Amino acid sequence: MDTAKNYINEELSGEKELLLKKYKEFREMDLSLDLSRGKPCAAQLELSSELLSLPGKDDYLSEEGIDCRNYDTDLRGLTEVRRLFGEMLEVPADNIVLGGNASLALLHDALTRAFLFGPLPGFTPWCKYDKIKFICPVPGYDWHFHVLEQLGVEMISVKTGPAGPDPEEIRELAKDPAVKGIICVPKYGNPSGITYSEELVRTLAEMETAAPDFRIFWDNAYCIHHLYDEPDKQDQLANIFDLAAAAGHEDRVLIFASTSKVTFPGAGISCMAASEANIQEMLRIRKYRLVNYDKLNYLRHIRFLPDMEAVTEHMRKQAALLRPKFEYIDEVLTRELKPLGYGDWNTPRGGYFICYYAPKGCAKRIVRLCKEMGVTLTPAGAAYPHDHDPDDSAIRLAPSFADMEDIPLVMDVFVTAVKLAVAEKES
Amino acid sequence: MDTAKNYINEELSGEKELLLKKYKEFREMDLSLDLSRGKPCAAQLELSSELLSLPGKDDYLSEEGIDCRNYDTDLRGLTEVRRLFGEMLEVPADNIVLGGNASLALLHDALTRAFLFGPLPGFTPWCKYDKIKFICPVPGYDWHFHVLEQLGVEMISVKTGPAGPDPEEIRELAKDPAVKGIICVPKYGNPSGITYSEELVRTLAEMETAAPDFRIFWDNAYCIHHLYDEPDKQDQLANIFDLAAAAGHEDRVLIFASTSKVTFPGAGISCMAASEANIQEMLRIRKYRLVNYDKLNYLRHIRFLPDMEAVTEHMRKQAALLRPKFEYIDEVLTRELKPLGYGDWNTPRGGYFICYYAPKGCAKRIVRLCKEMGVTLTPAGAAYPHDHDPDDSAIRLAPSFADMEDIPLVMDVFVTAVKLAVAEKES
Repeated sequence: MDTAKNYINEELSGEKELLLKKYKEFREMDLSLDLSRGKPCAAQLELSSELLSLPGKDDYLSEEGIDCRNYDTDLRGLTEVRRLFGEMLEVPADNIVLGGNASLALLHDALTRAFLFGPLPGFTPWCKYDKIKFICPVPGYDWHFHVLEQLGVEMISVKTGPAGPDPEEIRELAKDPAVKGIICVPKYGNPSGITYSEELVRTLAEMETAAPDFRIFWDNAYCIHHLYDEPDKQDQLANIFDLAAAAGHEDRVLIFASTSKVTFPGAGISCMAASEANIQEMLRIRKYRLVNYDKLNYLRHIRFLPDMEAVTEHMRKQAALLRPKFEYIDEVLTRELKPLGYGDWNTPRGGYFICYYAPKGCAKRIVRLCKEMGVTLTPAGAAYPHDHDPDDSAIRLAPSFADMEDIPLVMDVFVTAVKLAVAEKES
Repeated sequence: MDTAKNYINEELSGEKELLLKKYKEFREMDLSLDLSRGKPCAAQLELSSELLSLPGKDDYLSEEGIDCRNYDTDLRGLTEVRRLFGEMLEVPADNIVLGGNASLALLHDALTRAFLFGPLPGFTPWCKYDKIKFICPVPGYDWHFHVLEQLGVEMISVKTGPAGPDPEEIRELAKDPAVKGIICVPKYGNPSGITYSEELVRTLAEMETAAPDFRIFWDNAYCIHHLYDEPDKQDQLANIFDLAAAAGHEDRVLIFASTSKVTFPGAGISCMAASEANIQEMLRIRKYRLVNYDKLNYLRHIRFLPDMEAVTEHMRKQAALLRPKFEYIDEVLTRELKPLGYGDWNTPRGGYFICYYAPKGCAKRIVRLCKEMGVTLTPAGAAYPHDHDPDDSAIRLAPSFADMEDIPLVMDVFVTAVKLAVAEKES
């Protein structure tokens, strides 16, 4: 912040006037732009247009001859789709159970089951405890925190560093028997953009936990969502499923994924990967909740993306649409804010978000100023339990939904807001 | 049973020999026929073949211009589909929330929410009670009972008469504050085939309940599943939604329905109808579980069945396929068993089931004998809490899935099994 202070002291009045002029101009433009949601844009959706008329007349049989139109007793979902998710997550197809159009719902259901019945037979239902706690790496996915908040879980924030939260800190926290789990997006994190280091993954899989029913909710939402053909070595996520099994902790890990940002966010398919015991327990409860999720949508997807090669090719097209947005944002931040030392940000090589860390105490003001100028951002603090960022610093930028031609304007607004907020604070 | 006894006493030995001969012949035929599941047959599924290529290329906008491929913030589902379900259930579209492919899942979620959070804000979560009880009209839908059993609910069986369970009995039971609800299929019941009388519906809507958070889980799965164009007056189900609202009990009723037996069982759409307060509470929790269910499947369905006229026409075609099976079964039972006084059964004018009440103590044996002859029936007792039919009498016949040409053979086996079981018992 030294640089920023010097700059402000010397040039503030002239610069601030200029910023206020820009602010007024933007207000007069009556903009309505949105960088708040990790939502694919129309061009991304067009990539999956074929799905709209699939599986097609007379096509309703799975490779095992299951009539996907009817009820069926195979509770796990179609083999060919489980095989594909298995390849995606590097987990045996036998350890995959399919879900509906939202992996978040599978995660929510797993939590609900743990509360009502215990994570596995023999464990106390979590609703019977006065208090349970979860480790919550921050910044994190706001929806995760809302779910835990509704269930009355005490959330322990752990700061995400350049390779995820500190393994030692997590190891220490897990010594508390009330700490029943961790919830996280381990790859191209939402919104951190960070991929967890092998050391961290290993720690999570292998560490001792005071709670015998400790669970890792591994929301691998961006597992194949690379922005570049050659992912950095540090973006290669270690295989927690294998590591946990090798350590004798195979029941500890629940992995979630979906095609929400592969095909259609509203109409994709999802899965959970877990140990056989966890799957058995899931199905014990779920079989009286529904016979099957929509098997025709499984079929539709496997016709469109029959194997990993097709998936990879498809994700390359997605990346080609997303990458310029990410690169442009990084370029503007680097040019406009780096020389001033105004905040910090990640340069993710995948996922859906850039996390900008504003100078402390400025995030709310920046989001507010952007809103006044017609650009909606995710509310400041949303990436923290109870919507409270103690540093008031993190701002999630979600560029996917905006048109590429609008991004320069959005970033002009954003940079103006950052500079104004800092100037206000320092004056 | 007097008739049966006389018959057996006089003619048993010769008749039994004949039956045993038939039994052996059936066994040698190595049959594999199934009357156990309320599952549409292939010809019924063919009626909805169009769905397999809908909504079709470039068709993804709802009537309000929502892009059904993407996330969307309207948590209730598409207006045009809510309107259609509203007409089906005679409930305002505003009181309809859409679900995924299974109404059972919506029912399960509503129960789960009541257990974890209470049915509405301010009520004690049901998991905090030592014991809660539900009124369970029997015979009833086995899946309902399994859900309640898993949640530890004490189930109070109430016998279904020709117009549903006795209103007075229910009124009495509701005086116990531990009785938190009733779960039922009020129209063309599963498996009773019974439609509830207006008096009963009125009682449920209007009666005083000791529990202020008493809930009616109204699984209206067969609301439009008539076998005849002109439904009997007694099959006209009174409108519990309006009656409850008029009595000031609008929060008491949760209505569930789906297209599982309209279009595709595995890939249909579902809804819950409820008061605004119930819907608000549902969405308060659900919005962090998933953004939307599959909106493209809503669109697909509304393209195929755009209005009630289309639905009615479609259900007529379904009825044309189902009716002969129901009528044939009734004919055989009437010809073969009625003169002997062997049991009793309903003659439903809609729904998916015929419930045959065997002479007491014979149901398990009949199902077993059928199985030995190659015909699978729903296990005896399944329609009762904890799979226990105290009379060992009710047998659910579900003729939809079998081919019409197989039904004569199936019924020959069934009648043989009934006669044999009675003969064994009386000998």
